[in-house]
Amino acid sequence: MENFIYANPVKIIFGRDTINEIVNEIPQGSKVLMTYGGGSIRNNGVYDQAAKALSGYEWYEFSGIEPNPHYETCMKAVALIKEKGIDFILAVGGGSVLDATKFIAAAVCFEGGDPWQILSGRSEVKKALPFGDILTLPATGSEMNAGAVITRAETQEKLAFGSAYTYPKFSVLDPTVTYSLPPRQIGNGVVDAFVHVMEQYLTYNEGSVLLQDHMAEAIVKTLVVEGPKALVAPTDYDVRANLMWASTWALNGWISQGVPEDWATHMIGHEITAFYGLDHAQTLAIVLPGVMTVLKEQKRKKIIRLGKEVFGTDGIDNTIRAVENFFEKMGVKTHLSDYDLGDEAIAKVAGRLNKRGWKLGECHNVTADLVKEILIIRK
Amino acid sequence: MENFIYANPVKIIFGRDTINEIVNEIPQGSKVLMTYGGGSIRNNGVYDQAAKALSGYEWYEFSGIEPNPHYETCMKAVALIKEKGIDFILAVGGGSVLDATKFIAAAVCFEGGDPWQILSGRSEVKKALPFGDILTLPATGSEMNAGAVITRAETQEKLAFGSAYTYPKFSVLDPTVTYSLPPRQIGNGVVDAFVHVMEQYLTYNEGSVLLQDHMAEAIVKTLVVEGPKALVAPTDYDVRANLMWASTWALNGWISQGVPEDWATHMIGHEITAFYGLDHAQTLAIVLPGVMTVLKEQKRKKIIRLGKEVFGTDGIDNTIRAVENFFEKMGVKTHLSDYDLGDEAIAKVAGRLNKRGWKLGECHNVTADLVKEILIIRK
Repeated sequence: MENFIYANPVKIIFGRDTINEIVNEIPQGSKVLMTYGGGSIRNNGVYDQAAKALSGYEWYEFSGIEPNPHYETCMKAVALIKEKGIDFILAVGGGSVLDATKFIAAAVCFEGGDPWQILSGRSEVKKALPFGDILTLPATGSEMNAGAVITRAETQEKLAFGSAYTYPKFSVLDPTVTYSLPPRQIGNGVVDAFVHVMEQYLTYNEGSVLLQDHMAEAIVKTLVVEGPKALVAPTDYDVRANLMWASTWALNGWISQGVPEDWATHMIGHEITAFYGLDHAQTLAIVLPGVMTVLKEQKRKKIIRLGKEVFGTDGIDNTIRAVENFFEKMGVKTHLSDYDLGDEAIAKVAGRLNKRGWKLGECHNVTADLVKEILIIRK
Repeated sequence: MENFIYANPVKIIFGRDTINEIVNEIPQGSKVLMTYGGGSIRNNGVYDQAAKALSGYEWYEFSGIEPNPHYETCMKAVALIKEKGIDFILAVGGGSVLDATKFIAAAVCFEGGDPWQILSGRSEVKKALPFGDILTLPATGSEMNAGAVITRAETQEKLAFGSAYTYPKFSVLDPTVTYSLPPRQIGNGVVDAFVHVMEQYLTYNEGSVLLQDHMAEAIVKTLVVEGPKALVAPTDYDVRANLMWASTWALNGWISQGVPEDWATHMIGHEITAFYGLDHAQTLAIVLPGVMTVLKEQKRKKIIRLGKEVFGTDGIDNTIRAVENFFEKMGVKTHLSDYDLGDEAIAKVAGRLNKRGWKLGECHNVTADLVKEILIIRK
């Protein structure tokens, strides 16, 4: 096991009818900004519950945060916060709203010039406005980590940041608010969470770090059993509760402590989304089976173990097929051609990664050439 | 899944050569009290490493904290802290030293009269001195929770408390410091951690809460595989690292969120220790198989699942036998007669629980009569 230092201070408020608990968490007298995306929270009652809970505060709202949230949008919220003297942000939404809120919270307090530098990696976050959230879409784990991914529309770039200051103070997870989600979002969320675990589990490492591996399998077993049920029984409380909680654990940091991490699938996927606007999970469902195939020797023991422990199958090829089938079962297509993409997209993605000079994966061996190889078999 | 609200802010510093990290965690200028037990940390080099790290602080020490730490001992430390104006405590030791330190930290700040009231349950903790720890004995999980168990020698009582203010600020977990532990302490630690998981897992509840159950199994699988190895290969780093980390997770609170908890085995065991001074783990190894046997109908699904998932065996009786065998394999005896106890002890323990009127277990059905039944089959 590798050395690590980690703390995760997020307070989780989990269960039915828990939205009103925010009044015990947001300091009295705070000026609050509620951030959210489109109109879905107005239709499913979450907006009304949050507004009711905020009635004792001076509060404002900022809507229109898009999927793969834009830097440009975030900067509008930063201006509003400065104008109104806001001192607490309440994010209401899924990973995009939460990620945007993290960046907004850091950008408001950023003193080194253009906050884009937080994302370009040239500047460290040293402070952020406090924020909490009401999660409406289980998928990204953003509700229990300090990371965020932001897209700059202008330059078609999608970049990540994280800091000790951008953990939510609290996250409200009420599984009933997910009942009204469309199947596409459930499918995407389950695939996203599944791949998060794979990035921390499916590496060359096998046999020496027991607890983290078993815990990763615990999360994935939950997703594989409950995911398909969620599509057919949208109001089964326990199914939604198990999925919501498993998605949080897929990326709250604990399963990655002391082990190597991959993240090649995500980095390649981000580029596909940046160029072509595919859903994040769609890109992951395309790329992961390719990464597993091209790196099957490096990851061989762990792929075999995944097959045995989670899918009840034997061997590398059967396991890759089982993963692909699971994604398809969740309604997420797994080939570039399913999204009308082909050689041109492959060249574009590989070209940009070549330009960046990144060497991805837990062994830093996924060069642009290997990315091309991975994507060619996913046509 | 039941509703829950939980946060665990403890910063974990895990790995080789990490003791010196405490200088980054204890605020500069603090007056520090190092608390510890007997002489073992003087023999294994931990005292010297901690003292070296503390050389930039004004610091004092308080030693002599006994196993099943005494209220009376803790109150001496409280007096020393007040006399010297200490503002940070560094606990160096196992669960007893950590538990004592939590009580000391709370008692120093207690304003409602005799701090014994914190344990008797009549008074809530509203403040505590900040503290961190260097863990030397993996077992109790005290390094990542806010609970403590304290014994009052005078009245032979052993009572627990916990509060939001008694989480360690940090815990240093260096597996190499456990190399020199005697087999008896390794055996006790593994049994203790195993039973902690059982208290949160082995209930009437089965089938609806997936992630927590799989996570509990993840911890127990790690203990069952690595525990016996630790006895034959004391300096295998990965074995010690896996055991140390699994023991922490056995009682850091996360696997109990949203599920019922038992704790009958611990409550009965505490009384045996209070009267007869047995090691904590010895009492658990006696009691748990009795609880499993007497409550086999209530816990039937979960016992069967434990057998299948963890021990690769079928049926209730085989699983109880597998648990008993595992304890014996760890060198911890499982019957009252192994410790020269019998009918008199049973009458004494049941008598006190009868007097307290407690109804233990996840269904509040473990009365003093049932405790007698449990202990009679463990003679």
